[in-house]
Amino acid sequence: MPFSLTPKDSSFYPLFTASAENLVTATEVLGEFVHDHARREELAVRLRDLEHVGDQATHAIFRALNTSFVTPFDREDIYALASNLDDVMDYVEAAADLVILTGLGTLPAEMSQQVALLQRCAQVTAEAMPRLKTLKDLSDYWIEVNRIENEADKLYRRLLSRLYSGEFDALEILKLKEVADQLEEAADAFEHLANVVETIAVKES
Amino acid sequence: MPFSLTPKDSSFYPLFTASAENLVTATEVLGEFVHDHARREELAVRLRDLEHVGDQATHAIFRALNTSFVTPFDREDIYALASNLDDVMDYVEAAADLVILTGLGTLPAEMSQQVALLQRCAQVTAEAMPRLKTLKDLSDYWIEVNRIENEADKLYRRLLSRLYSGEFDALEILKLKEVADQLEEAADAFEHLANVVETIAVKES
Amino acid sequence: MPFSLTPKDSSFYPLFTASAENLVTATEVLGEFVHDHARREELAVRLRDLEHVGDQATHAIFRALNTSFVTPFDREDIYALASNLDDVMDYVEAAADLVILTGLGTLPAEMSQQVALLQRCAQVTAEAMPRLKTLKDLSDYWIEVNRIENEADKLYRRLLSRLYSGEFDALEILKLKEVADQLEEAADAFEHLANVVETIAVKES
Repeated sequence: MPFSLTPKDSSFYPLFTASAENLVTATEVLGEFVHDHARREELAVRLRDLEHVGDQATHAIFRALNTSFVTPFDREDIYALASNLDDVMDYVEAAADLVILTGLGTLPAEMSQQVALLQRCAQVTAEAMPRLKTLKDLSDYWIEVNRIENEADKLYRRLLSRLYSGEFDALEILKLKEVADQLEEAADAFEHLANVVETIAVKES
Repeated sequence: MPFSLTPKDSSFYPLFTASAENLVTATEVLGEFVHDHARREELAVRLRDLEHVGDQATHAIFRALNTSFVTPFDREDIYALASNLDDVMDYVEAAADLVILTGLGTLPAEMSQQVALLQRCAQVTAEAMPRLKTLKDLSDYWIEVNRIENEADKLYRRLLSRLYSGEFDALEILKLKEVADQLEEAADAFEHLANVVETIAVKES
Repeated sequence: MPFSLTPKDSSFYPLFTASAENLVTATEVLGEFVHDHARREELAVRLRDLEHVGDQATHAIFRALNTSFVTPFDREDIYALASNLDDVMDYVEAAADLVILTGLGTLPAEMSQQVALLQRCAQVTAEAMPRLKTLKDLSDYWIEVNRIENEADKLYRRLLSRLYSGEFDALEILKLKEVADQLEEAADAFEHLANVVETIAVKES
């Protein structure tokens, strides 16, 4: 751990929190998107807007990083945090976009459940971000995200099992997999984020 | 390279070796799984058990990391080693699970060959792990894993070539690709692991 | 940033430049490959040769790394630069190989456009590599690559939208996606490379 000769720049924590809260909103919009067939186009536009908000938060973090002499923790870790938050947003937005561009109709119930798990990940992540300041009481967060991601893996396999059960033809499977894979990637990115937080906490402890 | 003021904690090496030996067992079980159609359900359960053993080894490494003041090499590298060992186990288990949940019957010969290459990777990895202690004589290991991974890439493409040859319909191709991709990812994870070992050896040399 | 007690080894910069210039050639050959149906086999062989040239450049960098006491920047970053350059070459070569082994005929116009974006990425990357020496005037490079990668993402989605429009059957979609995904991965690898350069510039600034 490097010695800090000056007070550590605290401007990073609100940026991480804002970025994670943006994911809370985005996963809620994705939940509506999955259920409310008629409003899909409108909700996809909202997700695109939220992605732009997320991009701005990411760039604000990178700018803060480039102009800070002393950072609260390793620059690489700040990059990794910001990148993973950005990745989740990208997967969430892509999932909605792929539903529209493949012309999918009603989605399997397992997909609503995938989205519900992402909502839970976003919530615990947004609650954890302010605690980066003290690096205390974070283990509950990463344990919970790892637990949810495990559940998401099982759910994803249950969905695959259904896709290949004979209920769907090859073209429908292809389309549904495009979407399911994005949701699965989003859950993975939440886990990577939690792993970065764990690594930071371990290094600084 | 950081100065070591205390004897370096040696408890990590047996954990890496145990984790790699678990992969030797798992890839052997996967070999039986591929050939022995009738025992698939039973062997998939065994792989799930081995995955739990692997998870425990990974967590033991993370716990040792969290409680060690001085680690044998950079904490990030220990994380990367443990994570890659964990990834291989996940892909191996997933490959078997996907065979079952897509309801695949006899598998193409190329898949047995993919598994044979994974067995070889697991063996050389398990033999190399104890040498992390001295960081000597490891170049043979990473050269061999890179060679095998190259062979695995060629084999994967030969398999794709066969899948698209007209012998299979779109649905069968989709199912077979689910499995083949996991086996390919497992080979890649073995290579990433070897690359981490190479990086450690370079840094400490 | 470590103190340099000896002049920094400058042998790395020409190796990075050579590796990126190899990508300029490779993406040009891929452009011919996409358009010139009759010469595909011959051009795929050329790409395989270029991949071998790339592999030799990568290994030259790794060898230089292993024998240098003082490196111009962190060893991990040199690894990451070399690996990303290598990844792009692998995806480019794989894209061509997959066209041949899936037996695809005329490719959609969107794929030519994907390749054109890769050519542009390769050019700006090759122009930027010599500036690693001073780490000056590199922001234009990473901003441009990020911009191109954004465009590549939109193009990829437009291609997916067309693939699922009803024009193609499931088997054709599968084949075309094999190729499109490699081209998309190549664009992503160019972006990762640019991100590594940005990280280096930030750390050393």
